[in-house]
Amino acid sequence: MTANTAEKIRLHELVIDNGRCASPFVWRVRYALAHKGLDFESVQLGFTDIPAQFGGKFKTVPILEHGETVMTESWDIVLYLDRRFPDKPALFTGAPELAMVRLTDAWFTAEVQRRLFRVYVKDVYDCARPADRPYFRASREKNMKGATLESFTADRAANLPAIRTALNPLRMHLEKFPFVGGSSPNFGDYIVLSSFQWVASVSTLPLLTADDSLRAYIDRGFDLYGGLGREAPLQPLFESS
Amino acid sequence: MTANTAEKIRLHELVIDNGRCASPFVWRVRYALAHKGLDFESVQLGFTDIPAQFGGKFKTVPILEHGETVMTESWDIVLYLDRRFPDKPALFTGAPELAMVRLTDAWFTAEVQRRLFRVYVKDVYDCARPADRPYFRASREKNMKGATLESFTADRAANLPAIRTALNPLRMHLEKFPFVGGSSPNFGDYIVLSSFQWVASVSTLPLLTADDSLRAYIDRGFDLYGGLGREAPLQPLFESS
Repeated sequence: MTANTAEKIRLHELVIDNGRCASPFVWRVRYALAHKGLDFESVQLGFTDIPAQFGGKFKTVPILEHGETVMTESWDIVLYLDRRFPDKPALFTGAPELAMVRLTDAWFTAEVQRRLFRVYVKDVYDCARPADRPYFRASREKNMKGATLESFTADRAANLPAIRTALNPLRMHLEKFPFVGGSSPNFGDYIVLSSFQWVASVSTLPLLTADDSLRAYIDRGFDLYGGLGREAPLQPLFESS
Repeated sequence: MTANTAEKIRLHELVIDNGRCASPFVWRVRYALAHKGLDFESVQLGFTDIPAQFGGKFKTVPILEHGETVMTESWDIVLYLDRRFPDKPALFTGAPELAMVRLTDAWFTAEVQRRLFRVYVKDVYDCARPADRPYFRASREKNMKGATLESFTADRAANLPAIRTALNPLRMHLEKFPFVGGSSPNFGDYIVLSSFQWVASVSTLPLLTADDSLRAYIDRGFDLYGGLGREAPLQPLFESS
C-alpha cells in the first residue's frame, strides 16, 4: 500500500539542546523536501527517543512517514521523494546525475565528513539533551577502541589542516560554478551543506579560516529556501578575522 | 568560421617509445571521440614536436583540428564535441551532469592524479623518445625545487598507500554501479580510466594490489570501444598475486 501523495509527510529529526538539528543526514532530507517544495510536519526527537518510536524498528533518524510508508536512510528517502512526487522539481534529472552525486557523497564522506567526526563528536555530546548524553557517550565510545570522547578529541585541532586541504576540490569547483550542481543547487550541494550545518550546530572550534573562499558559497547555501539553514542560532564556522 | 561537421577531425597526441599515448588528457579526448562515435586521424607527436606545430601556438597536447577550428585543453575540446555534434551520443546529458563530472575531475586530480605524478614521472621520462628526454627532464625538474627526476621519485613507493586509500570512494561507488556514470560510462569514467591508461603506458611499479576490487572495473573500462585501451602493450597496473 503506498501513500496518496496528498497525505501528510512527517519527518523525524534529531534535536539537541539549542533547538538545532544535529544530524547531517536529517539535514539532507530537509534540503531535499525544500527542493521539492514539500511541506512536512517535524517530529523532534532526542537520541534516546528514537527507539521508542515505531516499536524500536529504527535506531537512527531521519525517519520519513508518508501514509503507510515509513522509511529511514536518507538516500532511500530522497529517491522515494523523486519517485513519489514526479510533478515536483526533480532532485535528480536522470541516472547519470544520480550516479555522480553518489560518487560525490562517497568522496565527501571519506575525505571530509569522516574527519569532521573526529573534531566535533565531543561538541555534539556537549550539546545533546542531558538525558541523551549517557547513551550518546556509550554508543560512540564503543567504536573508539578504548578512547573516551575526551581523549578521542584531545588533539582535535590537528585534524583541521587535512580537512581544509580535502575541501580544495570544492573550492576549485566553485571558481567555475555557483553551486556543486552547477548554476542551481542539486543534491550534491545538500550533502555538502548538511555537513556544514551539522558543524554549525555544535562547533566550539571554527572549521575554516576567516578568508576561506568557501565563505561566499556557504552563505549562499545557508540562505537557500528562505534561510532554511539559519532557522536557529549558528555556531561560528569561520575563525574571526 | 566553424567547421562543417563532415570535415575530418585530427587529434594531435603524445607518443612515447613503445607506441602508447602518454598523456591522460589525450586519453580523455580519445575516449570522448569513441563515446560519440567520431572518426579521427591521429597525429603522433613527441614532446619536442609540439611547438613545431601551428607555429608554436600550443605547448601541450591534446590539440584538436576540425576544419578551421584548432583547440587545445581537453575540457574545451570535449565541450566543443558535444556542441558541434549534437546528433551523436551526448557526453553530458545536461548541465547538472557536467557540473558533477567537473567536481569529480577536481577530486580525482587533487587526490589521485597529483600523487600519481610523484610515482610515475621518471617512468614517463624513461619511456619518452630519446630525442624528447632532455626537454622532458628540464621542463619537469623546473617545478621540483632543486630535485632531479631521480631524487624526486627515489622514495616513490611510499606514495602508494595514500593513492590506494584515495581510491576508496571509487571502490565504494563501484559496489553500486558498473561505471562512474552509473549503468553506462560517462566522462567521469574517461577521467578515471585515462589516468590508469597513463600509468599502464609507463609503469615499472604496479599501482594496485593483485586483489584490488578495482580490477574488474579497470578491465571493463579498458575493454570499452573495442578495446581502445588495449591497443598497445600495457605495463602491469596490478601486483602479481
